[in-house]
Amino acid sequence: MTAETIVFLVPAAGLLALAYAFLRTRWISRQSTGTEKMVEIAGYIADGARAFLRREYRVLSIFVVVVAAFLAVAGMAVPDTSWLIAVSFVTGALASGLAGFIGMTVATRANVRTTNAARTGLAPALNVAFSGGLVMGLSVVGLGVLGLGGLFLVYSGAGWEAAKIIQVISGFSLGASSIALFARVGGGIYTKAADVGADLAGKVYEGIPEDDPRNPATIADNVGDNVGDVAGMGADLFESFVGSIIAAMVLGIVFIGSFAEAGVAELSGVTLPLVLAGVGVVVSILGSLVVKVKEGGNPQKALNTGQFGATGLMAVLAYFIIRGMLPAQWEAAGVEYTSLGVFWAVLIGLLVGVSIGLVTEYYTSTQGRPAHGIARQSVTGSATNIIAGLGVGMFSTGFPAVILALAILGVYHFAGLYGIAISAVGMLSVTGIQLAVDAYGPISDNAGGIAEMAGLPEEVRARTDKLDAVGNTTAAIGKGFAIGSAALTALALFNAFIQQADVPDIDVANPRILSGLLLGAMLPYVFSAMAMGAVGRAAGRMIVEVGRQFREIPGLREGKVPADHTRCVDISTKAAIREMIAPGLLAIAAPVIVGFIDKSMLGGLLAGVLVSGVLFAIFQANAGGAWDNAKKLIEGNISIDGTMYGKGSDAHKASVVGDTVGDPLKDTSGPSLNILIKLIAVVALVIAPLIA
Amino acid sequence: MTAETIVFLVPAAGLLALAYAFLRTRWISRQSTGTEKMVEIAGYIADGARAFLRREYRVLSIFVVVVAAFLAVAGMAVPDTSWLIAVSFVTGALASGLAGFIGMTVATRANVRTTNAARTGLAPALNVAFSGGLVMGLSVVGLGVLGLGGLFLVYSGAGWEAAKIIQVISGFSLGASSIALFARVGGGIYTKAADVGADLAGKVYEGIPEDDPRNPATIADNVGDNVGDVAGMGADLFESFVGSIIAAMVLGIVFIGSFAEAGVAELSGVTLPLVLAGVGVVVSILGSLVVKVKEGGNPQKALNTGQFGATGLMAVLAYFIIRGMLPAQWEAAGVEYTSLGVFWAVLIGLLVGVSIGLVTEYYTSTQGRPAHGIARQSVTGSATNIIAGLGVGMFSTGFPAVILALAILGVYHFAGLYGIAISAVGMLSVTGIQLAVDAYGPISDNAGGIAEMAGLPEEVRARTDKLDAVGNTTAAIGKGFAIGSAALTALALFNAFIQQADVPDIDVANPRILSGLLLGAMLPYVFSAMAMGAVGRAAGRMIVEVGRQFREIPGLREGKVPADHTRCVDISTKAAIREMIAPGLLAIAAPVIVGFIDKSMLGGLLAGVLVSGVLFAIFQANAGGAWDNAKKLIEGNISIDGTMYGKGSDAHKASVVGDTVGDPLKDTSGPSLNILIKLIAVVALVIAPLIA
Repeated sequence: MTAETIVFLVPAAGLLALAYAFLRTRWISRQSTGTEKMVEIAGYIADGARAFLRREYRVLSIFVVVVAAFLAVAGMAVPDTSWLIAVSFVTGALASGLAGFIGMTVATRANVRTTNAARTGLAPALNVAFSGGLVMGLSVVGLGVLGLGGLFLVYSGAGWEAAKIIQVISGFSLGASSIALFARVGGGIYTKAADVGADLAGKVYEGIPEDDPRNPATIADNVGDNVGDVAGMGADLFESFVGSIIAAMVLGIVFIGSFAEAGVAELSGVTLPLVLAGVGVVVSILGSLVVKVKEGGNPQKALNTGQFGATGLMAVLAYFIIRGMLPAQWEAAGVEYTSLGVFWAVLIGLLVGVSIGLVTEYYTSTQGRPAHGIARQSVTGSATNIIAGLGVGMFSTGFPAVILALAILGVYHFAGLYGIAISAVGMLSVTGIQLAVDAYGPISDNAGGIAEMAGLPEEVRARTDKLDAVGNTTAAIGKGFAIGSAALTALALFNAFIQQADVPDIDVANPRILSGLLLGAMLPYVFSAMAMGAVGRAAGRMIVEVGRQFREIPGLREGKVPADHTRCVDISTKAAIREMIAPGLLAIAAPVIVGFIDKSMLGGLLAGVLVSGVLFAIFQANAGGAWDNAKKLIEGNISIDGTMYGKGSDAHKASVVGDTVGDPLKDTSGPSLNILIKLIAVVALVIAPLIA
Repeated sequence: MTAETIVFLVPAAGLLALAYAFLRTRWISRQSTGTEKMVEIAGYIADGARAFLRREYRVLSIFVVVVAAFLAVAGMAVPDTSWLIAVSFVTGALASGLAGFIGMTVATRANVRTTNAARTGLAPALNVAFSGGLVMGLSVVGLGVLGLGGLFLVYSGAGWEAAKIIQVISGFSLGASSIALFARVGGGIYTKAADVGADLAGKVYEGIPEDDPRNPATIADNVGDNVGDVAGMGADLFESFVGSIIAAMVLGIVFIGSFAEAGVAELSGVTLPLVLAGVGVVVSILGSLVVKVKEGGNPQKALNTGQFGATGLMAVLAYFIIRGMLPAQWEAAGVEYTSLGVFWAVLIGLLVGVSIGLVTEYYTSTQGRPAHGIARQSVTGSATNIIAGLGVGMFSTGFPAVILALAILGVYHFAGLYGIAISAVGMLSVTGIQLAVDAYGPISDNAGGIAEMAGLPEEVRARTDKLDAVGNTTAAIGKGFAIGSAALTALALFNAFIQQADVPDIDVANPRILSGLLLGAMLPYVFSAMAMGAVGRAAGRMIVEVGRQFREIPGLREGKVPADHTRCVDISTKAAIREMIAPGLLAIAAPVIVGFIDKSMLGGLLAGVLVSGVLFAIFQANAGGAWDNAKKLIEGNISIDGTMYGKGSDAHKASVVGDTVGDPLKDTSGPSLNILIKLIAVVALVIAPLIA
């Protein structure tokens, strides 16, 4: 098989992933759904989630049509581009939307079946929850490689030169990014408005318990887990996955001449990222097969085996693929490359993902010193709890920044700019199983909520709690992975932009570029402020509505009359849809406006958004995670300076404040920055030929 | 008078300022100190402040000796530099230390005399408090121009060429920056450890009032106002003042050839910043003369008249000085310059200071919507109060970033890189009166504390409160001015570094530079985390000590036995001295290490620290200011959705949490970043010849 025919297998790997996801979905659907009450509750959650997606997609379809029209016109008006960029854009948007739809639909089926499986034991529950997550993971990578690989084959057939093919395909990435933005921001606002609102209602109106079926906001809270943590995270990684591949393809163009000379398929540098991604899809499926736990077994161990096994296997396969596809050494644009160097870059990418994940875990887990420090500072009240958490978040940016800086230096040393992009591809090649492990968390969380609301016996909840606890650790690592991959992807896109827009340099001693840098560094702050403000406003409305229902619906407090949860679902949905628009437009308009003023200034803007956004995202994610687990530490009873503190203590109340503050930071504004930094880079890449 | 002789008047202006400060000090000392109790309390505060300075200076003297020895050796070892750089360094450190000592000593004399003057009326109290602030302001600018101007004249006499003279003088700036770092960080930790500790002790141990003479931490709290807000702010602006002048001098060197051709004194570009600064000193004295308020008059108006009058006068004088000293137009290194362009740059500098100040005021004042928004969100508890405050802080970075970006583009358009530095000089030329207005605030605050502790009648406290309220607005504007000036100064130093180190470019597409950028952007986070952690730890010890005294000292609670305030002063002092070392070393070591690895990477680091530090500082300062005033709004009774909230309400308790969280942000970590961004740039400038 030649390097040219191997590309045909890339979409095939996508189809394989989708087929396997379909089989798992069928298996999930065949599991029993349990009692009538459970079915009813799960139905509300599924309805709420579907209603949100429907409304979101309606708004987004207008957006997609407008942008596609703009791209088509621009593509026809400018020489060397094509209106087909609009087709790629629509395809990317559809693929991202479809992945979100599949993932969320299956997650809302898996949740209740996980609850039911937990009635018999831990092992069956894990299998259902993980299968649900796996469907999301495989849908994302499957549609990703199918779309990218398919478009590449179709456009290759048109006989264009590689640069134009990839320029047109970059529209796919823009489509994915646009949907990701709204899914992450909208989903983040939805879930935290409901969560914060439900939590605080209990405090503002005395006597309304937080996680109680009578609280009308609990359904919205559970819907939020699905639209935020499942669909939002999926869209985020879909964007990283696609963006890193596109960026590496762009940077692989410079090798064409040298490869032709070396007697290797000239497009090997361009197709390598596609092939690695395709193989990664298969590796993710293989990894998922070993995630099995027997009764009494350790779910964490099962997940780790799958995840680390897949990563190790991918590293080995990457070695042979790279040695097989690339010449042993070559020169391009005055730089010496070796295939071994490219392999090292991929390996560094895999290691960066794991190490940033481990740092995140240290700063946020209940085992680490930081969370204990926050718990200790909770004894003197909410103010010291908040100060301590902010400090942990700030401090936690140190190691990830050093890791990323070293990785940038390392991959560049081994394989130049191409190395930066291919390392991002390496890191993201195992997205399939990574996302399965991520999405398993909110499914377990939902399963616990359903157990609670359906009044199932204590032991069921205990089992789902155990799954959930494992989910929290994986979620922390997943967040680190999402931020790290966003950083590398944005960096790769940044370099692809410089090449496509033909920017001579981005010298920050130039005032225009420095101004761009400053404005870029500011965007994550204003973007986060918008997201935080949206959560605050929507949570306020939620609190008022919960209070109104308890006042006005007779019998609700006694549990005789059901709460009107549809009103709460509606508040979250409307707020999320309305409030996602302004930050979304900011993210798209900023690079376009600055780019048409001066392409070098846009380069400065990209660099500013990238470094500021990555650090601000890590700060927010880790502060939020640490507050969350400091609260869990106290809830599990903890001795501080010889005194025991537990639920109901003043220290616990202080820790609840920290947790509530951390919620929008770690689940709305922080993760939205992942999208911001990638989206701005993709927009720049797409408009690059217009401003070159 | 020729342009060459005018330089001799610069140190003369410094001497004039010091002489006038001496006269005002004598006048202050002649005012009556009031009752025996007042004298006793003021004595405790003065003793505490002096004790802190003594210990701080002892530690710093070791640091100064070590760095001076290093500079002397490096200066002798490297061609084209001189061991005299060590002399300049020591002179700069001494000047900064002396300015802090004078300012704080006079402030601790003015506080009790302000209290006593407030017993008769508002006008006399304002005059005493403002005089105290003015002594600080004039000491800073007086010693600044005396030191810089004096060294310039001395080294000029040695017959060196201009580049070497200025290289050696840059040691003065490094000396000023080093002292500033420790004064700002140490002072900030001191004041907030005492403040947060005193506030929280009342909550942790029921029944200990916050601002009560029986609370043993109140003296430390009042000492903190002097060491943090007076000496710390003074050292901060001393550094900006000196740094901006040095940077402009460095960038003025390129004009030498063109000026000789044009028949103008060839060093005019180098001496212009000194002359502007010298004239600014005289203008500040003139401005101070109009700050007089009659009984029943408006103190805010008096301060504004002085400040805006001085700014306006400076703008007019700058026009004539620049037209007089520079040729109408010239060319240097291929760039066209005009004297009018240089004037526009100065004017933009003056406007940037004012406009960032006004933005700061909007986001933090009790009149603005942001503080009202936070007050409203306090109704639903501390968590929503914190979320709202964080959102305000993030959002508030928007306009300042746009103002700075436009200013950078504008000054560069009018006068190139020289324009950036000279605009910083313009902005800082009125530092004398700006700092007088800033330092007046903490003196009034102290005066109120003394009135409270000495048990003076309500009306006295009412008058000092009125002064303090005015002080809060001026403090907000002063903080904006300090951040804006730090940004422009650091930017000017950054450009001076590029020139001195002969860095070809700082192209962020280069991975080394990008890594530097990322690491630089991370430093403000870790630096802030260290400062926040220090405050948290010291406040914790303070709380424990206050509790111990109330438990173990019989009669303290009843007010029969005085509290042992020396222990609390000691806790703050020790904590401040110990905890300032690690962040200080980080700030100095980072640029040295990175610089010796790669000078371009250091360029990236500087750009990263600059943009990230400015934004993170604005975020922290404005979040803190807005929380503070949201609390004040509620304390002044406010109607939200038809319900009245005031002191003691749940909304008030929530707002106190926000205020306490904001304290270290706005008074410790935030302002410390001003120093960080300048110091790293100065260190880079000083080591530039070694790595060139």
